Order: sequence, then structure tokens, then C-alpha cells
Amino acid sequence: MKPPEARLVYAAGEKDANLFYATRLLTPDPYVFLQVGRRKIIATSDLELGRARAEATVDEVRAHSEIERALRTAGAQSPGPADVIAALLREFRVRAVNVPADFPVHLADELRRRRFTVTPKAGAYWESRPVKLPEELRAIEETQAAVEAAMAMAVETLRRAKTRGSRLYDGREVLTSERLRRVIDLALMERNCVARGTIVACGDHGCDPHHLGTGPLKPDTTIIIDVFPRCATSQYFADMTRTVVKGKASPEVRRLYEAVREAQELGISRLAAGVQGSEVHRQVQEHLTNLGYKTRPRNGKLEGFIHGTGHGVGLDLHEAPWLTPRGGIVPEGAVVTVEPGLYYFGTGGVRLEDMLLVTKSGCRNLTRFPKILEV
Amino acid sequence: MKPPEARLVYAAGEKDANLFYATRLLTPDPYVFLQVGRRKIIATSDLELGRARAEATVDEVRAHSEIERALRTAGAQSPGPADVIAALLREFRVRAVNVPADFPVHLADELRRRRFTVTPKAGAYWESRPVKLPEELRAIEETQAAVEAAMAMAVETLRRAKTRGSRLYDGREVLTSERLRRVIDLALMERNCVARGTIVACGDHGCDPHHLGTGPLKPDTTIIIDVFPRCATSQYFADMTRTVVKGKASPEVRRLYEAVREAQELGISRLAAGVQGSEVHRQVQEHLTNLGYKTRPRNGKLEGFIHGTGHGVGLDLHEAPWLTPRGGIVPEGAVVTVEPGLYYFGTGGVRLEDMLLVTKSGCRNLTRFPKILEV
Repeated sequence: MKPPEARLVYAAGEKDANLFYATRLLTPDPYVFLQVGRRKIIATSDLELGRARAEATVDEVRAHSEIERALRTAGAQSPGPADVIAALLREFRVRAVNVPADFPVHLADELRRRRFTVTPKAGAYWESRPVKLPEELRAIEETQAAVEAAMAMAVETLRRAKTRGSRLYDGREVLTSERLRRVIDLALMERNCVARGTIVACGDHGCDPHHLGTGPLKPDTTIIIDVFPRCATSQYFADMTRTVVKGKASPEVRRLYEAVREAQELGISRLAAGVQGSEVHRQVQEHLTNLGYKTRPRNGKLEGFIHGTGHGVGLDLHEAPWLTPRGGIVPEGAVVTVEPGLYYFGTGGVRLEDMLLVTKSGCRNLTRFPKILEV
Repeated sequence: MKPPEARLVYAAGEKDANLFYATRLLTPDPYVFLQVGRRKIIATSDLELGRARAEATVDEVRAHSEIERALRTAGAQSPGPADVIAALLREFRVRAVNVPADFPVHLADELRRRRFTVTPKAGAYWESRPVKLPEELRAIEETQAAVEAAMAMAVETLRRAKTRGSRLYDGREVLTSERLRRVIDLALMERNCVARGTIVACGDHGCDPHHLGTGPLKPDTTIIIDVFPRCATSQYFADMTRTVVKGKASPEVRRLYEAVREAQELGISRLAAGVQGSEVHRQVQEHLTNLGYKTRPRNGKLEGFIHGTGHGVGLDLHEAPWLTPRGGIVPEGAVVTVEPGLYYFGTGGVRLEDMLLVTKSGCRNLTRFPKILEV
């Protein structure tokens, strides 16, 4: 008889989505997760025991310290995590474990030295993770509601702002990226969401898609607003981007905006269960290229459509499936973004991002926020 | 001639403090870091190139995509991160690399298959990380200023609250853990700090040191408030805990509080460059035991002094050096917490945590917030 498949994770519940997915136990410090067949066991520090027993969706919660104590009684000098894991594996008669691709090499080496077979699993560690259960979808939609409320506050703040010269004023204060980011992050927090790295990037700042944006916002210039918080309770993310201009958009920016909007609609129209993520990306890319928007370096910086078309969203902000050159099959029930963008220094950056639930025949847009260029 | 030591990290700047420490480049997605002798090279996605060249404290920034392109030209089918890393290592004539203990096993295996020697480094990856530079200390102190301002808001809210029956009221609203947590987290955000998991734990909730606390706060009952945000700009954490009672503390709680306060003072008085972290912990533990506070399981839950005495604080909330049973030598310039606690179900939990800079002859307390039990 083939022994049942065994899986091993060692990580902090707060930092590792694969672990939290399996146990629903959020901890600042690492703990051991072992699954033998369908049986799930964790071994946590004494500090986590109470909460682990109350919250973790596992069959058994062990005290790390008790296993250590037993090892010391048996003569071990100062047993570490590898010793504790080895003891657990022996107890459950496991000789071979599958671990996530990002399992710590140090522990893997220690376990291999103790003659266990440690095999990193290629691709998604939990095959089911990309496919969202109803309660996971609900959690993502809840976070998305907070995202849209925060975006509404940001747009309203821009609408209300007065233009004087090349600056915008919120009352008597100069309206900066930092100030608008705080409006967004506070609105998110009111809704129990934690933002890290909200983007409010004006003009050339927006051409570097990971630039957070700094300093005064300018009228008649593109402002990319990318909001992607995590719900403090459910731990699920949502992700949305809008691009706006306070005042008048130039004809060039209008054309950029329309091109990106069309490319996004094209991408969304191609999305359905079973498509190749790479193929959706290719078609979006082709559309922008056909419109004459080239992607190439200029003065040492890339311009054009310089990133992937989209990514899965869930317990990680960026997770499978991927709408990128290396993206694989998109399953029914996945939640993915479609977010083409065009970036040209001197003109500005435009990105539009919606989040969609993939269905058998197409997809359902989880994003309701309107796409309006001038505010 | 011995080849220069080479180091390799592959991680996301946002998630990996060892990487951010070396490069000061914050990214949501992983990138390659290679150090050969003193020369630092990174290879990032096209998306990060601009910011990487502007911000990263490295000698050279490469485009991941260009290395991939070269590999494809040379015949590779679909080169992945391991191929790109291997190409970089070959270019710099590196055959052996030191990696962090938590380097992904998957990549390590791929590199070993390509005949590179991959050695996880035991202990701290950067020996210098525990010892804070003046600008790092400044960053921690800035975060700490936000922590103290937020704690002051929390205590003020409790002071102002009205007691009716077994509940507290903030105006017309019942004062809950959630509500007080929001007061704290908003105050932190006003100061550019991001909180995740702020603890406001009343009574028995506080006896599970990682329970965030939920529901109505009670008068005459211990409330543990543990605040540990990260500055959104500098990325440095700070960490402080106070325990308060709104109304009257019972004689039992008073004794707990005094015992913990004394144990903390003892721990602080033992802290100095060169001491063993484990020894500081042992003395603090001994003090509490001598006062008659036993640590043991009751009804399947641990009670007493059930966690370590302290930990380093920096780019990680919990980092070396450790004041725990396995803690090693504490170096001059480290920033550590001293945070004994006592937890007894039915009585309540008390924890007091200050953050200290270790000096040659002792330590300097970075925490100014007063320790006042009744508010």
C-alpha cells in the first residue's frame, strides 16, 4: 500500500497564505503544520495553544514545548524546529513530505540530513486555492466594497479641490499624493481594512507602476489611484485602479485612456474558465500594439504596456492564476484582475483595473466603480 | 586565492527584512540580490527598474527580462528565476553562495541541480542587523513616538469613558476592544504608521497573549494594550505594552501588576552589551517564580509567565537578539523589548513592555510612557 501523501509547512500564519489557507490560524510566529492523508496536525508555541485550539481548522493541536520536552528527556541537547518536526513525522510514520516551493531551505536540509524526503511542490501548493469558495468570494467582495468607498472619497476630494496655478488645494492645504493617500487609507481603516502602499501617482510618477507618488498633485495631469488593502478580519485582499485628471485631459491622454479602456474590455471579454492566462495577456498586448502604442526602453526606462494584464487575488494580493506571458489555465471560480496600462514619460500613465470572478462562460465583474477620466 | 564570499537572496522587498536591509528597495514582487565580495547586484522585473535604479543601495541594477532574453537567444525554452540566477552567478564566476535560512528550497534545489553550492547561513543573515545604526535608531524612535501618542489616545478614551453596570460607554456607544483598537490604529495612521493586530484584550482575553480582544470592555478588569506598528516610510517597527484597569483594580490584580513591574525593572537592570539573552530571561522568570507565581497548565491552558522576556525590534517586529531560553549574546546597539507578563484566567492578564537600546554598561529606555494601573 502506498503511504498517504504528507504535507509539511513551517511558517508564520500572518506571513504565509498557504498556511493560513489550511489552518485559518493567524500567528506572528512560525508553527508546524503537518497533513497526513486528510488528517491535519499543528504544533505551536505555548503562546498560541489556546487560540489554536479555538480557531485552527485542524484535527489536532500539539504544544511545540511538549515535543521538545520529550526530546530532551530522550537525551537531545537543545532540540530545534527540525527536531520537533522530525519527531512528529516519526510519530505519524511519515518518511516523505511535500513542502511549498518557498519552504525554508535550512529546515529542508536538516530534515534531509535526518533521512526524510523533502519535495518542493511545483506550482500552487493547494490546487484548490485559486478557486474561491462562496465564503472566500464574500470576503473579497467585502474588501472590494471598502476599496470602492475609499476611491469615492478620493475622487470626491479631487472634485472639491480648487486649482490655483499648477497646484490643487484641499481647503487651505496643498493637495499632495500623501494627503490623498491618507484620505484613502483612513476610509479603508474605517471599514476594517489595512492598506500598505496605496498608490496616488501623478504624471511621471505614475509611469513607474510601483511608485507610490509623492508631492503636490497637478491639475490637467494623469493621477493613477491604485487601492489594494487586506481586510483585517478575513485577511482577503481586493484590488482596483482608476486613473483621473483633475481639470482637462490633453487629447494625447484621452487617447491613452481610451486605448487602455478598450484593451481592458477586450481582456475581460476573453476571460472565461479554461482560457490560458498567457493568451488573454497576448491579446490585450496585441490590441495596444496595433493601436500604435509601442513598448520599449527610452532613456533607460521602459515605456508602453510594461506589465502583465492581471493576477489572481485572495489571501495574497498577487497569486495564481496569472494573466502574464507565463500564465497557465484560468479555472472557474478564480478571482482575477484585468489591468492594462500605458505609460509614457512626459505624457503620463494610465491604468484601469477591475477584479472579476471567472465563470464557466465568461466572468462577472466584482467592480462597480465608474471609469471617468476628468473629475 | 579563495574566491570572495557570495550571498544570494531571492524574495520580495516588502516581505523580507534581510533583503530590504541590504537594498532599501521595497517591492511587492520578488527580485534577485547577489553580493560578490562587497559588490551588490540586483535583477528586478521591468516594473521595478526605474525605482530600483533611483532607490536601491546597490552597485548595479539588471533587468530580469534582459537576462531572460539572452538565455532565450542562447536556446533556453522558458527560462525561470533559477536560470536567471544561474546566468548571473556564472557571469560573476560564483560557484557557491550563502543564502538566508529561509531561502526557498525550490530555488536551492534548482541551483544545486545546476551544480552550485547553496549554503543556508545559520543565525542572523547579516551579522550587523541586530546592531542599529544611528539612522535606524532614529527611525525606531520615530515609530515609538507614534506608539506613545496612540497609547495616550487610548488611555484618554478610557479615562473619559463612563461606567454603567458592567460596561463602559464612549459617549453613547459601548466601548469595545474593536472601538479602542480603532482609536489607536487611526492615531498611528495619522503618524504614518501601519498597525496590524493591535491588541486591546480585556480580562480572560488578555490571558491568551496573542488574542486581539473582542467585545465590550469591562470596568475593574485588566485591559492589556499592545501597540506595535511599522512606519510606512522607514519600515521600522516599535513595540510597547501597557496594562490598565478602568475603575478599581482588585488586590490580586495589584499584586500581579507589581510583580510584573518589578520583574521588568529587574530585566532592564540586567540588560547590557555582552549579556546572554537566556540569562536575562532566566532571572526575570526566577523573580516571578520566587514571588509564588507558578507557570503551569490549568484546564488545558497555560497560566503564569508563559512567554519569553523580550526580542529585538527593527525591520522585523520580532528579530535577534532574543531574551528567551534560547537567546544568545546581546550586542551593544541592539534594540530589545523587556516584557514580562502574568496571566491567570479569572483574575486577568498583566504585561508591561518597554523598548530599550543596549549600551556598553547597561541600556537606555526608549519608552517614556508612564506605567499607571488605574485610569
